[in-house]
Amino acid sequence: MSRIAYVNGRYVPHRAARVHIEDRGYQFADAVYEVIAIANGRLVDGGGHLDRLERSLRELRIAEPMTRRALEAVMAEVIRRNGIRNGSIYMQLSRGVAPRDHPFPANPRTQVVMTAKHGAPPSPKIAEDGVKVITQADIRWSRCDVKSVSLLPNILAKQAAREAGAYETFMVDRDGMVTEGSSTNAWIIDGDGALVTRPASNAILDGITRRRVIDLARQSGIKVVERPFSVDEMKRAREVFLTSTSAYVTPVTQVDDRTIANGKPGSTTLALRERYLAFMAQVA
Amino acid sequence: MSRIAYVNGRYVPHRAARVHIEDRGYQFADAVYEVIAIANGRLVDGGGHLDRLERSLRELRIAEPMTRRALEAVMAEVIRRNGIRNGSIYMQLSRGVAPRDHPFPANPRTQVVMTAKHGAPPSPKIAEDGVKVITQADIRWSRCDVKSVSLLPNILAKQAAREAGAYETFMVDRDGMVTEGSSTNAWIIDGDGALVTRPASNAILDGITRRRVIDLARQSGIKVVERPFSVDEMKRAREVFLTSTSAYVTPVTQVDDRTIANGKPGSTTLALRERYLAFMAQVA
Repeated sequence: MSRIAYVNGRYVPHRAARVHIEDRGYQFADAVYEVIAIANGRLVDGGGHLDRLERSLRELRIAEPMTRRALEAVMAEVIRRNGIRNGSIYMQLSRGVAPRDHPFPANPRTQVVMTAKHGAPPSPKIAEDGVKVITQADIRWSRCDVKSVSLLPNILAKQAAREAGAYETFMVDRDGMVTEGSSTNAWIIDGDGALVTRPASNAILDGITRRRVIDLARQSGIKVVERPFSVDEMKRAREVFLTSTSAYVTPVTQVDDRTIANGKPGSTTLALRERYLAFMAQVA
Repeated sequence: MSRIAYVNGRYVPHRAARVHIEDRGYQFADAVYEVIAIANGRLVDGGGHLDRLERSLRELRIAEPMTRRALEAVMAEVIRRNGIRNGSIYMQLSRGVAPRDHPFPANPRTQVVMTAKHGAPPSPKIAEDGVKVITQADIRWSRCDVKSVSLLPNILAKQAAREAGAYETFMVDRDGMVTEGSSTNAWIIDGDGALVTRPASNAILDGITRRRVIDLARQSGIKVVERPFSVDEMKRAREVFLTSTSAYVTPVTQVDDRTIANGKPGSTTLALRERYLAFMAQVA
């Protein structure tokens, strides 16, 4: 089965899927995106992702290209044509194609690109061993709440992690507080046993998995506190983990050169991971 | 004569010029660019622009796609095929095409897109009347010295200017000091009659026109001081102007609701504009 992409109303072979060189997504990073996990053929938290997509469009004043129902129909068709049972769907919406000029063009037509791919869940070994994270100054712009393709600082941070033999880079604001990972949200279990993550603001992307994990934790009777935490507090925390659409709940056992607690994934982290996997199974 | 674009080794009709949807420039803003003015068929400060392009590539560790001589040959061919005597050339280089994943792909092939267009110089009326500028917080990332396509904050700032009936937005750092415009550098003539512009750092793009104007000013015996200036100092300045590849030297006669000096373009600004136009004429 060859890969098929959706590009502005057409289903085309992936290798031939192209956009115009004056698509504003290409010239100005004037575009937003979402990645949604697919489990057993169903979208995981599809509603949350589409709500956030609509918010990103509103914040940048990019017109919705079609109704949500129509978008859902395209998503279903992309999943069907690619025969995806487990994997993810990627969609990118840009402001339009127009002669290169900074201001918004008159009457732009929102461009829509969608792809889907097969993907196994994160290896169980990751859950057994945990991952290493490094920390770096957060050099991103001030509107990280908008899920735009303006991801250059994120890819540089992720590349730095890879080169340090780490899974992720947690970014740190001017006050020494952790914002989030380059493509994940950051969490700790603090000295009081509370689950702590930074509150949603312009400084982080309000992850859909983040919100789901907060809900699942509360349902499990775990105290959740949304507050910033410092790199120092993280290094002394009982547990550290990260979340994302594709990483689910992943234990962090090392931050920079510091081993977290006894170096094993924490029990609360693993319990939340199980809860999240159960949630995914139940969706599907 | 129909427009021709260069896309990765091929000269194609502009309307058919496309890049793959997994070009990292499209998905991650993982690309750099330059815009170079063309006067009487010649590049204006071509060497300075290509030096900066090479620096941007180095800073992001994107491989040079070809030698400078080869790139110059492509530029000449794009200019020739489009029959441009006066206008500009745009080139964008992205890290490559690869399945979407944050870290740098293995063995990427740098993608090269180039277009050229006719363009008249800025209207003399702008030099006679000056333009209005507004100010806004600078919300960009910390590596504005790299000329990347991560331009979403810039287009939002330019759009804000347009909606306020202004020509440009000057951006302001946390200390109340002007960084630069959304696509221009900012200048004042201070109370001592010195020409003042912010020094090159990670906070601004070191404009090629900026450097040229510094040289031309010094040749004219004008004292040039590279230091930050505040919004307040700008509003009380004797003269304010902006520079860019396409705006040359443009007088600013209003900042937010404040008229600058007597509301007419300043004499030093106009002298520098003449010097710059003479420089362009001599290049060609």
